[in-house]
Amino acid sequence: MALGWTDILGLIAGICTTVAVIPQIWKAWKTKKVKDVSPGMFIVLLVGLALWVVYGVTKKDMPIIATNGLALCLNGFMLFLMVRY
Amino acid sequence: MALGWTDILGLIAGICTTVAVIPQIWKAWKTKKVKDVSPGMFIVLLVGLALWVVYGVTKKDMPIIATNGLALCLNGFMLFLMVRY
Repeated sequence: MALGWTDILGLIAGICTTVAVIPQIWKAWKTKKVKDVSPGMFIVLLVGLALWVVYGVTKKDMPIIATNGLALCLNGFMLFLMVRY
Repeated sequence: MALGWTDILGLIAGICTTVAVIPQIWKAWKTKKVKDVSPGMFIVLLVGLALWVVYGVTKKDMPIIATNGLALCLNGFMLFLMVRY
């Protein structure tokens, strides 16, 4: 599969929205505090990300599959941290 | 533009990832506290969402444009709340 510049644009967009949760994970990990963070946000997000992966598979849209799949893992980990703390 | 079931799937996925921030906005609004929320998360997210909109325009992918555009507004508002509190 050859990558055009739109695919690269999609990948950069996806990398940003995917890694966005990392500063939040880092903060929660360091402070062990998640009091002001909304669990509802991450639950709804996980449902949406899972549906995005299905959408990407249907459309054979590689950037959507790759980025939302990774985001699903990262946000799942964040929700795990929230349950733990 | 006729909507196929993949478009509808994409819209539902987008609605979830878009409205996900609403519980967080609600929580921040009520408690006026955002101490444990990472500003880095929302800054990176806003950049990514803006790029997604450009990607959607390039691919003429309506669900991507609509949902990321709205998400951009909502997350921008959340960042505004974080700056305020």
